[in-house]
Amino acid sequence: MFFRTNQFQYNAKPTKPDPIFAKQLQEVLGGQWGEISVMMTYLFQGWNCRAAPKYRDLIMDTGTEEIAHVEMLATMIARLLETSPVDVQENAAKNSAIGAVLGGSRMEDVLVAGMNPQHAIVSGLGATPTDSNGYPWNSRYTVASGNLMADFRFNVTAESQGRLQVCRLYEMTDDPGVRDMLSFLIARDTMHQNQWLAAISELEEDGVEGPLVPTSFPVENQKSDVAYQFMNFSGGEESKEGRWAKGPSIDGMGEFEYVAEPRAMGEVVEEMNPADPLMHGTPKKPIQPQST
Amino acid sequence: MFFRTNQFQYNAKPTKPDPIFAKQLQEVLGGQWGEISVMMTYLFQGWNCRAAPKYRDLIMDTGTEEIAHVEMLATMIARLLETSPVDVQENAAKNSAIGAVLGGSRMEDVLVAGMNPQHAIVSGLGATPTDSNGYPWNSRYTVASGNLMADFRFNVTAESQGRLQVCRLYEMTDDPGVRDMLSFLIARDTMHQNQWLAAISELEEDGVEGPLVPTSFPVENQKSDVAYQFMNFSGGEESKEGRWAKGPSIDGMGEFEYVAEPRAMGEVVEEMNPADPLMHGTPKKPIQPQST
Amino acid sequence: MFFRTNQFQYNAKPTKPDPIFAKQLQEVLGGQWGEISVMMTYLFQGWNCRAAPKYRDLIMDTGTEEIAHVEMLATMIARLLETSPVDVQENAAKNSAIGAVLGGSRMEDVLVAGMNPQHAIVSGLGATPTDSNGYPWNSRYTVASGNLMADFRFNVTAESQGRLQVCRLYEMTDDPGVRDMLSFLIARDTMHQNQWLAAISELEEDGVEGPLVPTSFPVENQKSDVAYQFMNFSGGEESKEGRWAKGPSIDGMGEFEYVAEPRAMGEVVEEMNPADPLMHGTPKKPIQPQST
Amino acid sequence: MFFRTNQFQYNAKPTKPDPIFAKQLQEVLGGQWGEISVMMTYLFQGWNCRAAPKYRDLIMDTGTEEIAHVEMLATMIARLLETSPVDVQENAAKNSAIGAVLGGSRMEDVLVAGMNPQHAIVSGLGATPTDSNGYPWNSRYTVASGNLMADFRFNVTAESQGRLQVCRLYEMTDDPGVRDMLSFLIARDTMHQNQWLAAISELEEDGVEGPLVPTSFPVENQKSDVAYQFMNFSGGEESKEGRWAKGPSIDGMGEFEYVAEPRAMGEVVEEMNPADPLMHGTPKKPIQPQST
Amino acid sequence: MFFRTNQFQYNAKPTKPDPIFAKQLQEVLGGQWGEISVMMTYLFQGWNCRAAPKYRDLIMDTGTEEIAHVEMLATMIARLLETSPVDVQENAAKNSAIGAVLGGSRMEDVLVAGMNPQHAIVSGLGATPTDSNGYPWNSRYTVASGNLMADFRFNVTAESQGRLQVCRLYEMTDDPGVRDMLSFLIARDTMHQNQWLAAISELEEDGVEGPLVPTSFPVENQKSDVAYQFMNFSGGEESKEGRWAKGPSIDGMGEFEYVAEPRAMGEVVEEMNPADPLMHGTPKKPIQPQST
Amino acid sequence: MFFRTNQFQYNAKPTKPDPIFAKQLQEVLGGQWGEISVMMTYLFQGWNCRAAPKYRDLIMDTGTEEIAHVEMLATMIARLLETSPVDVQENAAKNSAIGAVLGGSRMEDVLVAGMNPQHAIVSGLGATPTDSNGYPWNSRYTVASGNLMADFRFNVTAESQGRLQVCRLYEMTDDPGVRDMLSFLIARDTMHQNQWLAAISELEEDGVEGPLVPTSFPVENQKSDVAYQFMNFSGGEESKEGRWAKGPSIDGMGEFEYVAEPRAMGEVVEEMNPADPLMHGTPKKPIQPQST
Repeated sequence: MFFRTNQFQYNAKPTKPDPIFAKQLQEVLGGQWGEISVMMTYLFQGWNCRAAPKYRDLIMDTGTEEIAHVEMLATMIARLLETSPVDVQENAAKNSAIGAVLGGSRMEDVLVAGMNPQHAIVSGLGATPTDSNGYPWNSRYTVASGNLMADFRFNVTAESQGRLQVCRLYEMTDDPGVRDMLSFLIARDTMHQNQWLAAISELEEDGVEGPLVPTSFPVENQKSDVAYQFMNFSGGEESKEGRWAKGPSIDGMGEFEYVAEPRAMGEVVEEMNPADPLMHGTPKKPIQPQST
Repeated sequence: MFFRTNQFQYNAKPTKPDPIFAKQLQEVLGGQWGEISVMMTYLFQGWNCRAAPKYRDLIMDTGTEEIAHVEMLATMIARLLETSPVDVQENAAKNSAIGAVLGGSRMEDVLVAGMNPQHAIVSGLGATPTDSNGYPWNSRYTVASGNLMADFRFNVTAESQGRLQVCRLYEMTDDPGVRDMLSFLIARDTMHQNQWLAAISELEEDGVEGPLVPTSFPVENQKSDVAYQFMNFSGGEESKEGRWAKGPSIDGMGEFEYVAEPRAMGEVVEEMNPADPLMHGTPKKPIQPQST
Repeated sequence: MFFRTNQFQYNAKPTKPDPIFAKQLQEVLGGQWGEISVMMTYLFQGWNCRAAPKYRDLIMDTGTEEIAHVEMLATMIARLLETSPVDVQENAAKNSAIGAVLGGSRMEDVLVAGMNPQHAIVSGLGATPTDSNGYPWNSRYTVASGNLMADFRFNVTAESQGRLQVCRLYEMTDDPGVRDMLSFLIARDTMHQNQWLAAISELEEDGVEGPLVPTSFPVENQKSDVAYQFMNFSGGEESKEGRWAKGPSIDGMGEFEYVAEPRAMGEVVEEMNPADPLMHGTPKKPIQPQST
Repeated sequence: MFFRTNQFQYNAKPTKPDPIFAKQLQEVLGGQWGEISVMMTYLFQGWNCRAAPKYRDLIMDTGTEEIAHVEMLATMIARLLETSPVDVQENAAKNSAIGAVLGGSRMEDVLVAGMNPQHAIVSGLGATPTDSNGYPWNSRYTVASGNLMADFRFNVTAESQGRLQVCRLYEMTDDPGVRDMLSFLIARDTMHQNQWLAAISELEEDGVEGPLVPTSFPVENQKSDVAYQFMNFSGGEESKEGRWAKGPSIDGMGEFEYVAEPRAMGEVVEEMNPADPLMHGTPKKPIQPQST
Repeated sequence: MFFRTNQFQYNAKPTKPDPIFAKQLQEVLGGQWGEISVMMTYLFQGWNCRAAPKYRDLIMDTGTEEIAHVEMLATMIARLLETSPVDVQENAAKNSAIGAVLGGSRMEDVLVAGMNPQHAIVSGLGATPTDSNGYPWNSRYTVASGNLMADFRFNVTAESQGRLQVCRLYEMTDDPGVRDMLSFLIARDTMHQNQWLAAISELEEDGVEGPLVPTSFPVENQKSDVAYQFMNFSGGEESKEGRWAKGPSIDGMGEFEYVAEPRAMGEVVEEMNPADPLMHGTPKKPIQPQST
Repeated sequence: MFFRTNQFQYNAKPTKPDPIFAKQLQEVLGGQWGEISVMMTYLFQGWNCRAAPKYRDLIMDTGTEEIAHVEMLATMIARLLETSPVDVQENAAKNSAIGAVLGGSRMEDVLVAGMNPQHAIVSGLGATPTDSNGYPWNSRYTVASGNLMADFRFNVTAESQGRLQVCRLYEMTDDPGVRDMLSFLIARDTMHQNQWLAAISELEEDGVEGPLVPTSFPVENQKSDVAYQFMNFSGGEESKEGRWAKGPSIDGMGEFEYVAEPRAMGEVVEEMNPADPLMHGTPKKPIQPQST
């Protein structure tokens, strides 16, 4: 069960309105790698967790924190839309945007054209659970597989892509209030990258997972002779120089091998068998229209 | 530019038809973590790559191989649908499925109800670029961010989730032909997990990326005092015991700290400013309908 | 900022496993009118709220409660998948599902075909943020417009569709544990339907909104002569008998009128003007291929 | 069966072209609350209607009218794109948009950048069944549940959100031709809000539905002690002051109660049972890789 | 403007209920090639049409007819769900579906598992605007490009895929009432395939379009030397035997040529230039974390 | 199995950067009719092909070529984003975009507002598998039905819509490098339109398909009396003049007939039967809440 306090985890106040940046900032709220994605990912990983309690608690602690991040971003975006569009839209009411085309030169209207139109028409100058192109958030941005090694690797990825995007947004604004909030989110992403990497170590130390996912699948059931071969399918052999092409494998169970000219191991592609004629697909030979 | 040989990379032939397994196998063809996802992810990472040539070549080699995996899975699914549905559908033509409801007991019709209906109606007993629930593949399953550390972490994740799913499917069938092909895919996923982990090491050895993504963002620009704190937002303190709550951080730049009672650092939530009245949102105080 | 206690708001434990019902129950977790939809709708309405504090608090209280409902449903679904599939899947591993087609008669395998395959392959027997057909939740199921009358009407709708669906699911199971949890959710939906209806009254009593949304738009700007006419566009005149075809309008500002034979008030459809020839659309008259 | 006359229901002609407003106006054609949504919602509610004929006729009358509204909006958008882009695009052909970046100052090209690019590339200066961000319309914007009280509440909502959005667009343009058409749509939305509210009254008067959806579900099957409690899950107690926290409930079957400190009624979250080991999820204790 | 008569264009009544077939039949209502797709495609092509009136009228005549087809299919599906599920669901209420797993043998419950669960939970035994897997219809299934040759080719395709799917469904049922309706839809698809083929001829006879789309683009602006070459990129040379590899081209403007060993005409892939360092992508050489 | 050479099929290098055109060009990479659509369509048609080998080879040759087209477009877009945004973004870092609103006049920032924000935030100045509005590519843009006549008609359509869009983009830029690449793609689309038209002829010559899809369905099973009638459902009779309203049908099996006043052939719409009361839909007559 959840409770909410009436205070933000950190400041969420811009110095001045900025409808264009409001649109861009949506990416880390409702985009593929935004805060809604990590919030929902962690909550579902926690609710589905069948491993030791420390892992479940770790996940739920973090998932609950992320709700507060979603809250800060939504509030920031609503405030970035707060004042400026009033003026701009009032002008828009008096002078249509097309005025600029036909001879006008009013920069305000041009910028209105750069806003997310749904910030005006749909949300009435509030945040929306969508990305920077207005594409709605969907749950295919999340994962909870039941295998914590696979999922913690996803979590490291999500915090990496997320921190990368917040840093890019930091470079795209010079509003001190916005940058203050972003510096907090960047720091928390630093912690979260570190934390999931630490949790991966812990899984291995506990002996419940190894570096190869899933560890519990019997290795004798895989086609072992191709399990450590790097195959050169693209022009150029620069890839031969990398760590992945020679030396012991990372999982400690094999030796990397570079295959300069990979060969096909399967059958020559033969003709497919015909399908049920009631499917009315194209046959190999001419047919007569059938009767029933 | 690409070329295709007329031979499969490995065998793709079932021992017997199985329309239910054909539906399930779709997950690793067109699902979130299926082969189309890694094929498209790697190709776009390669085409966008601005790093050293060995990384670009590594990515393109692997992306090109994945097209062959998509080919094997599509062929396998088409063959799993090949013979059996002929009989089944012929029966379906003679006796409607509802027959079973009204007193019949024909198992074939019941199984037809378990097929993906689009395998009959839409593709005429061929594979579709969709997942095991018939949901279409979309490009939000991919990522190519320009930051290779962030992207290689995604790649490790994708190969982990992918190998996990293929192993589950291996357990759900006992067809020797299907298992033969899956054992090949599982082995290649073993290689690919290892390879991306190796590439992550190489990025660090080359000094172009560090363990914290993005490395190039000045750490003094983050709110440093919260960058290594684990915060306890959920009931229970089991998470205090983990590697993530004490000791040096994984990136070597801090010390983990456990915060048992995290406090809000932001302002008390105050009232939001009003929006432009032309947006016709609900005001704080009663208003009169305005005239223009 | 949010906190979580380590106790469910209400019981979430089935008497026995039921993978088919687990699939069906997903509808009220991740479907159009499921708990994720109301949770996200209320949270965003609250974060964007610029009206009096009592409304913001009302919305946030309810939004926070809904996270607990999502938690209960996710847990219930994970438990419905808990035991039974073990047996079933073990059989599936020993005997392929297709066995049933080719002569077998094992009911378990048939039922496996009725499961959501992603409950096995993707989530490893956990809940997913999707509906009963496996379609992912997306944020277009939510609304936060800045106009509380419009939004509270949505909230009444969401609680009505939601309670309807939970009642249907109640009828589709006889597991006492499942029914116990559903009876709690049904009661909370009773409260929430009542509460949003009460809030609608309050908005009118406070004078910040009236029955016609948006109240603040000057009525003289609408084409008044058609503002209270019911128009008969479909064969049959049964609709003439209803409350909507005569008597004073609900908003108290007009009189309903029944128009038996509605007439077109616009222009006769004339030819459209041509578009820019550089768009290469089909012209009215033959053209010569142009040169640049 | 349907027929079409060759005349618009009302005027649909702008005074001057405006590609930016054409993009914005798409919201009420193909957006979540646009005319396609109500057209499809009403048609499906009517085709599925099993209630008294007057309701079916009411719904079909309105659904058929909405096709005409879709027609007017599509035509208006095509005309807003008609002339202006010719000039603009011709300029674009002669001088690339990037010219403006590198030193140019041509406002026309900047505005082209604000157009929906698909209005040029995809539809050749015609309307598209998408919203103001170019997101395609989908049928999850509709509902037809078989329960008319639940559905008419949706209909009131749709006409409220729809009228709100059209009013906002009215404020965002000063083209007299566009405003003339919008004033007609606003008036019809006035009627439709009133009409669905009237239909809700009629359902109650007829005794086929009551204020609590669904009425036919036995109230003794709900957990009655929480059916009228308002629970305070968020910081602040402003919500205590509202109509929803005291007095008789709107459905007349209970008394509102304010619960200042809601308590959890469910079990303490305990460890989840393990899942089938063949799912290869992370176990509680270390395991050995298994053999088959 | 549109009107509706209170009579179906053709019969839409099944002989007996069939919830499984109801699910399958959804494909041609709300699937990629279903009736909603052609209805919306033709209506938007008509509203956007800037060509001669006979084409606009042709398109609108057909688009209006398609609304009646959607009506027939929706009604048929609602009736297929009408009676049978009553019995089935009553049983489901008394005995949970899982009963069958634990020892029962009741076929009815098994079939319920094969129904589209949303036909019960969401629509209350009515049709939904979705396909046979429950995936919602979306407007990317339509096209209206402004170029009638391109669009009429789409229309021929849609009527071909549509007729193919209806024929497959005809084979999958033996209900005389269902087959009667399908035989009508199949015949209308015969007309519509013929009609769009005829319209393509007319476009050419009128001289407004030729066989190469778009005709109005100056052919000297294309890279002419590859405009009629068939290139052999896949193993095997069977394709050399076809009409497409030799002889005059279909548009009469070239001669087909078979290129057995296609060569790359572009540059060798060189290194990409670096991107803006503020994007924090991975560089070619080691960098120092920067300061601002 | 596939291989890649390290050379582009044709040049893919712009003369100068252009972030706005980069956004627009995405349409033919990841849009409905973009190169990813034809690549995936042809590959799946080939893998599912059960017809004569020459058709399978034809399809695979073309599908393999399309991967090279995707490669060229992705590279071109990455290069269009290469240099310019560096400068622009550096300015953006120093002066926020909103500067322009509050008095500034810097054109660069305005243009940044016209970029696809995800080109900066998500892909770090690389191409994305999305369309010109940032909407992700999905596999519903493809088709592989098993019936080659139906599918080749789709292929002709795809190459027609695709060439149309590339020609429009050609007109919207004057960058010689971009136009050089587009002239190559336009020429290949010329070939591909011709090739699929030729393949349609070949199917007929081989006698495996006729002009009516599907040919193998017995025509006596369709409702023949409406199979060649053109019905006038829309105001105006201009459509009477066309080739589709008189003369022999294109398939040679009937005679076109113009029906000026089409009549309904189905039953008068009668009341629907009630549904299962456990669905809690609205009944015709008042009901009492039931007990269980």
